[in-house]
Amino acid sequence: MAFTEFRPLDEKSLVDYIKFVPALFSKLGNNLDGLTIKEVGDGNLNFVYIVAGPSGSFVIKQALPYIRCIGESWPMTKERAYFEALALKEQGHWSPDHVPEVYHFDRTMSLIGMRYLEPPHIILRKGLIAGIEYPLLAEHISDYMAKTLFHTSLLYHSTTDHKHAVAEFCGNLELCRLTEQVVFSDPYKVSQYNRWTTPYLDHDAEAVREDNALKVEIGELKSKFIERAQALIHGDLHTGSVMVTLESTQVIDPEFAFYGPIGFDVGAFIGNLILAYFSQDGHADGGNDRKSYKEWILRTIADTWNLFQKKFIALWDEHKDGSGEAYLPAIYNNSEVQHLVQKRYVEDLFHDTLGFGAAKMIRRVVGVAHVEDFESISDAKKRASCERRALDMAKLLLKERKKFHAIDQIVTAMQQVA
Amino acid sequence: MAFTEFRPLDEKSLVDYIKFVPALFSKLGNNLDGLTIKEVGDGNLNFVYIVAGPSGSFVIKQALPYIRCIGESWPMTKERAYFEALALKEQGHWSPDHVPEVYHFDRTMSLIGMRYLEPPHIILRKGLIAGIEYPLLAEHISDYMAKTLFHTSLLYHSTTDHKHAVAEFCGNLELCRLTEQVVFSDPYKVSQYNRWTTPYLDHDAEAVREDNALKVEIGELKSKFIERAQALIHGDLHTGSVMVTLESTQVIDPEFAFYGPIGFDVGAFIGNLILAYFSQDGHADGGNDRKSYKEWILRTIADTWNLFQKKFIALWDEHKDGSGEAYLPAIYNNSEVQHLVQKRYVEDLFHDTLGFGAAKMIRRVVGVAHVEDFESISDAKKRASCERRALDMAKLLLKERKKFHAIDQIVTAMQQVA
Repeated sequence: MAFTEFRPLDEKSLVDYIKFVPALFSKLGNNLDGLTIKEVGDGNLNFVYIVAGPSGSFVIKQALPYIRCIGESWPMTKERAYFEALALKEQGHWSPDHVPEVYHFDRTMSLIGMRYLEPPHIILRKGLIAGIEYPLLAEHISDYMAKTLFHTSLLYHSTTDHKHAVAEFCGNLELCRLTEQVVFSDPYKVSQYNRWTTPYLDHDAEAVREDNALKVEIGELKSKFIERAQALIHGDLHTGSVMVTLESTQVIDPEFAFYGPIGFDVGAFIGNLILAYFSQDGHADGGNDRKSYKEWILRTIADTWNLFQKKFIALWDEHKDGSGEAYLPAIYNNSEVQHLVQKRYVEDLFHDTLGFGAAKMIRRVVGVAHVEDFESISDAKKRASCERRALDMAKLLLKERKKFHAIDQIVTAMQQVA
Repeated sequence: MAFTEFRPLDEKSLVDYIKFVPALFSKLGNNLDGLTIKEVGDGNLNFVYIVAGPSGSFVIKQALPYIRCIGESWPMTKERAYFEALALKEQGHWSPDHVPEVYHFDRTMSLIGMRYLEPPHIILRKGLIAGIEYPLLAEHISDYMAKTLFHTSLLYHSTTDHKHAVAEFCGNLELCRLTEQVVFSDPYKVSQYNRWTTPYLDHDAEAVREDNALKVEIGELKSKFIERAQALIHGDLHTGSVMVTLESTQVIDPEFAFYGPIGFDVGAFIGNLILAYFSQDGHADGGNDRKSYKEWILRTIADTWNLFQKKFIALWDEHKDGSGEAYLPAIYNNSEVQHLVQKRYVEDLFHDTLGFGAAKMIRRVVGVAHVEDFESISDAKKRASCERRALDMAKLLLKERKKFHAIDQIVTAMQQVA
């Protein structure tokens, strides 16, 4: 059987496909005996199969031409698999410890074969809901972000390499458009897709739609998201795109990848940690008041930013005489000016991080796609109370982000939200 | 004779070429009798022929694979002709009154056939040196800028159209790289190409190379120039790219066009008017002290910005319920928020304009390519004095641009430069 044109696979046809592809078949020792295939795609967009046999395993991810969680009524190009594979390879090149290896990509079938992240890997978001501390998380994710973002920015790229890559990823525009809609637009207007914990947050959702100052900020960030090709960003770096154990941190699902503002990635991660923080009171019970866990999240937020910034600047220093064309060594030729431009760059990045992070938080409370951190709080009133605090924090960050200059100020502000 | 592969034309082979191309031959009434051909390319990059016969005329512009004024030692893709033709057509579509019509484009030959801008059209820069007032200039150029820049921005484009166009113009990267080098890099370091009025400006040139605060600003603008795909910009909108009569204003030579920051175009034009202003004292003589002409330039600077801003906002208001996806009408649904986002947008654009305009001024005093406004002042000491004032003004604008909020403040600052 040939696979010369696209068709969705199921457990049965997947076996035929694997036999057809040496890069996959060989991972199983060219042997189908004892093979198990399990569909585990709980994401919003794709089918995901775990394929395991006695001699090896892998994951198969296939994109379908619509958004899975909404159905065929919301078409979405399956070409996203091409950009996901491209991004996985690029990010894996720069951060191999934190990106699963790609074994095989089939553009016709919109199909990626990659490393199976074996148990006890779980989705970070589920670990945060369960109250598990990951002592290496900030170290790992800051490493992933610093390396993938630095090496695809003009601090490392020649402008020739940069423009070639920017042009290529302009092709992933349908996924960019989805972000534009669900992050930067729908929450600020009446949309059939929006939902929130009703009736408790009815007034809060309305307030977002009527907040002119908020709309000015989100408009500026929307344009920046579309216009500013700063680096190859993951594009969806929330805590559901990260798989963890106590020792391992793996970033998956970069199908929204394109050349955009760095702060969109850093903000997505930190914003989702802030959501996790405000959800904790909903998960507290007699056995665990979650107070110390909240402290751990706050430390992880601060560590993530501080380590990211430190590692990013260290890479900059390491490569300051290298290929990057933004700041030529013949111009930025003394330590004072080097320090000044880095300070300016990081300050700008911090404000972007806060703004984009806030935008990602708001849309999780009043937009189409919510987060399990809150959804798993069954008491609606309690859930709404957690969500409202997250929303209030996000509105503050979005409007006042330029008044903050260090992550400690964010932590303090979070502790002060009523 | 066929023209199936690239070769540079001369007056003789051009005649063969014209016979071969109906779109050109027909402009001459399919008749070569009485034909005159004159090479007039005084620009830095290309060969330009005026072709005129008894029944019609046109201009032929051919790009060669190097920079003409420097020679074969500085190679430069002739594909720039493709982007110039693309830009001329797009800009001509939005501003037909101020862009010459393209009759013919031949990608293989890197050749554009277009309207001949007949006498008394002259290069605006030459008119400014001669002290000629153009009463419609601000009206016309603001019209051209508002229309071409608005209609290629996200205020008019869907994000789909925008990303397609951005990707296409990423191909013009060699010309972008030239700008990056000569505008944003060379003036701030030792470069074999830099020159200035020596010995008078030796210290000034050195001061630019040692000014850390200036380097921080130019670095930020360089990255913005590369990263920010705000609209299809002309990319080289100085007063040598504009041809004028008292009634007509025509913008030519958009071979540097790409999706970049709008302020780069507006700044280039206004920055070159500021250069013209500071050159006037060098052109003053007993018969004409140029005082009233300087007043006219100041009025033209103010009018250009104010009219541009007014027309740009008028287009935005006109199309606010249209195809542009930056500010959706369902979100920006009241006049207060509409006013707030426009105010924010214009303020940001004003600061970009001042910064990029200043960068364009600095490079004309201490970089590779100078302007005739100053070069035509034969007394080197007098020329240096004019150039120094322009340079000081530019440094002020680049460093302090965010402290200015209206064009009148710029005019006042210009009058105060010693």
